[in-house]
Amino acid sequence: SRSIDLAVIPGDGIGREVVAQGLKVLSAVLPQDAKLQTREYDLGAKRWHATGETLPDAELERLKGHDAILLGAIGDPSVPSGVLERGLLLKLRFAFDHYVNLRPSKLFPNTATPLEGRPDIDFVVVREGTEGPYTGNGGSLRTGTPAEVATEVSVNTAYGVERVVRDAYERAKARPRRKLTLVHKNNVLVHAGHLWKNIFDRVGEEYPEVTTDYLHVDAATIFFVTQPERFDVIVTDNLFGDILTDLAAAVTGGIGLAASGNINPTGAFPSMFEPVHGSAPDIAGTGKADPTATILSVALMLRHLGLDPEAARIEDAVSADLAERSAARTTDEIGDALAARVAG
Amino acid sequence: SRSIDLAVIPGDGIGREVVAQGLKVLSAVLPQDAKLQTREYDLGAKRWHATGETLPDAELERLKGHDAILLGAIGDPSVPSGVLERGLLLKLRFAFDHYVNLRPSKLFPNTATPLEGRPDIDFVVVREGTEGPYTGNGGSLRTGTPAEVATEVSVNTAYGVERVVRDAYERAKARPRRKLTLVHKNNVLVHAGHLWKNIFDRVGEEYPEVTTDYLHVDAATIFFVTQPERFDVIVTDNLFGDILTDLAAAVTGGIGLAASGNINPTGAFPSMFEPVHGSAPDIAGTGKADPTATILSVALMLRHLGLDPEAARIEDAVSADLAERSAARTTDEIGDALAARVAG
Ligand SMILES: CC(C)[C@H](C(=O)O)[C@@H](O)C(=O)O
Ligand SMILES: CC(C)[C@H](C(=O)O)[C@@H](O)C(=O)O
Repeated sequence: SRSIDLAVIPGDGIGREVVAQGLKVLSAVLPQDAKLQTREYDLGAKRWHATGETLPDAELERLKGHDAILLGAIGDPSVPSGVLERGLLLKLRFAFDHYVNLRPSKLFPNTATPLEGRPDIDFVVVREGTEGPYTGNGGSLRTGTPAEVATEVSVNTAYGVERVVRDAYERAKARPRRKLTLVHKNNVLVHAGHLWKNIFDRVGEEYPEVTTDYLHVDAATIFFVTQPERFDVIVTDNLFGDILTDLAAAVTGGIGLAASGNINPTGAFPSMFEPVHGSAPDIAGTGKADPTATILSVALMLRHLGLDPEAARIEDAVSADLAERSAARTTDEIGDALAARVAG
Repeated sequence: SRSIDLAVIPGDGIGREVVAQGLKVLSAVLPQDAKLQTREYDLGAKRWHATGETLPDAELERLKGHDAILLGAIGDPSVPSGVLERGLLLKLRFAFDHYVNLRPSKLFPNTATPLEGRPDIDFVVVREGTEGPYTGNGGSLRTGTPAEVATEVSVNTAYGVERVVRDAYERAKARPRRKLTLVHKNNVLVHAGHLWKNIFDRVGEEYPEVTTDYLHVDAATIFFVTQPERFDVIVTDNLFGDILTDLAAAVTGGIGLAASGNINPTGAFPSMFEPVHGSAPDIAGTGKADPTATILSVALMLRHLGLDPEAARIEDAVSADLAERSAARTTDEIGDALAARVAG
C-alpha cells in the first residue's frame, strides 16, 4: 500500500484557502489503502513579522524528511519585496536543488482566453530552477548615491544546463509530438547563450526522434500569442521561464489554472508543488480564489510520486469541471466539485 | 529652411526594401524648401562576409556627423549569432549613447490583433538602451567542457537609470493620461531592482502630476494580453524592454507595424530609427515585407528632429491607410500609398 508523507506550506494570502482544496481533492483521489500523512509548516509573512525568520535551518532540515511539499503562496505587501521570495521560496528551490521547474500550459475547454480563435494550446515549459539570474550573485556599490552601480549576475554551468536539457528531451520524447524548443537570447547573452545552445545541440544527438527548434525569448513571446499551438516542450533558463510561464498562464485561462512543480528528479530532496499565482492579498478570505491551479499542482505531485492514474483522474476531473463551469463558484465549491468527481 | 543630413543603413534581408519605402515617404512629407541629403552605409552580413568588418572605426566616425540614422534590419543566418547584433547594432546603440529606446504601441483601426475584443491599446515603452545585461559583461570559463561556467552581468548605474527614468516621466507628463509604470523584477533581482525602484520613486516626487505604478516583468506580460489598455508609458531595463516590446508588437498588429527610436536626447550623437522587426531573410525579395514599421520609425525621427507636423502627417496617413487596407499589397504599393497620402 502507498503512503505519502506530505509537508504543507499554506503561506500567505489565498495560500491557505487553495491548499485546503488541494488537500481535499488529494484525499478524495487516493486509493483506500493509501496512507496520507501531512504536516503543516508555519512559514511566510506572519512568521516573519513575529520572529524575523523566513526559513530557519531546523525547519529546512525537517522538510527534507517528507516525500513532497505542497505550497500555497508566499508574499505580502507588508514585507519588503524580496525578503520572503529569496528567504523562503527561492531558498527552498535552491536548497532542495529543484532544477526542473515544470509548468504545463493547456487551454481547457470552456475556459476564457484573451486570444481570438481559441488556438489549440498544450505545451509544457521546463524552466531551469537553480541557476541564471536567480542565484543571488551580484551586489551594489555606493548604494543610494548618484554613483551607485548595481549588478546582477546570471550564472550558468554546463552541469546545471545539461541536466535540465536532458530532462526536457526525455519529456519531449514521451509526448506524441516530440518537439523541443530552446528559448534563450543567444544573440546578446552570448556566453550563456552559447553554453545553452551547444549543450542543447549535443544532447539532441542522443534524441534523434525529437524535433528541435531555437527561438530568442522576444520572438517566443510573439508566438505565445500568435501561434501557441506550435509549442510542445520548451526548455529555458530561470528568468525567461518565469516570464514565459506567466504569459502562458494568461493565454490559457489565467493564473487561476496554472500549476507548477519544482522538481528534483534524482529524489535526493523532496520536490515542491505550487500554483504559479501569488498570494493575492486583495482577494484573500473572499472565497474568490480559484483553487484549480493548486489542485492541478497536486496532480503533478502524484505523477512525480508515481501515482499516474490518480494524477490523470484529477486532470480529467478539472477538464470536465471546466467544461461545465458557468456561474461563479467559491473556492470551496470548486474544491468540493472536484473532490466529488475524482472520488466518483 | 530645414535640412536633414541622414545616414541610411539598409542592412540585411528585407532591410533595403523597407528603408526604400521609408525614404520615399520621407521625401514626400518634407516641406518643399527642406533639403534632404542621404548617405548610404554598406554594413551588415554582406560586408562582414567580404571583409570581416562589422563597424569599422572610420565608419563610426563618419556616422557621427549625420543628423540621424535610418536603419533597416541587421542579421543573416549565414553569420554566427551575435556577431552582427553585438558588432554593429548594439555597438551603434552604445557608441552613440542611445539611452532611450523608444517603442510606441498603438492598435490602429482595422489591424489584426490576436486579442479578443480589440482592446484600446496606446502606450509607449521607454526601454533603457545602454545598460542591463546588454553591456557585454560576463564570460565563460572552461568553455566547451563539462565544467564550463558562463556568466552574464547586468550592469545598472544610478547615472544610467536616472536619465532614462527622467525621460520617461517627461514623456508621461506630456501625454493626456499621465501614467508611468516601472517594470522590473525587484523581488528577485534585488540590487538592480532596488536601484531602479528607488530612483523611480525619488524622481517621481518631481512629477506629482504623473500617476505611478510598479509591476514585476512576469505580471506585466499578463496585463499586456489581458488589460493592455491600462498602460500609458512604461519604463524598464534593456532586456525586459526587449521582451515586452516584441509582445507589445504582437498584440498591436504585429511586428510589421512596430517602430522604434534609439535616442540620445542630449543631441551629442545622432539618434537612430529602425523597425522593431528583424531582417526576415525568408521573405526578402518577395515584396511581402510591410514597410509600415520603418515608415512609422521615420515619423519618430521627424519628431525627434523637431518636425512634429510632418511626423503627425505620417502617423495620420498610416492610420487612414490601415483603416482602408484590405487586399494584400506589396512593400512598394504600401510605400506608394503612404507617400501619396502624406504629399496630399
Ligand atoms: C515569487 C517569485 C520569486 C517567483 C519567481 O520569480 O520564480 C514567481 O514569480 C514564480 O514564477 O514562481
Ligand atoms: C537584434 C537584437 C540584438 C535586438 C535587441 O535585443 O535589442 C532586437 O531584438 C531589438 O529589439 O532591437
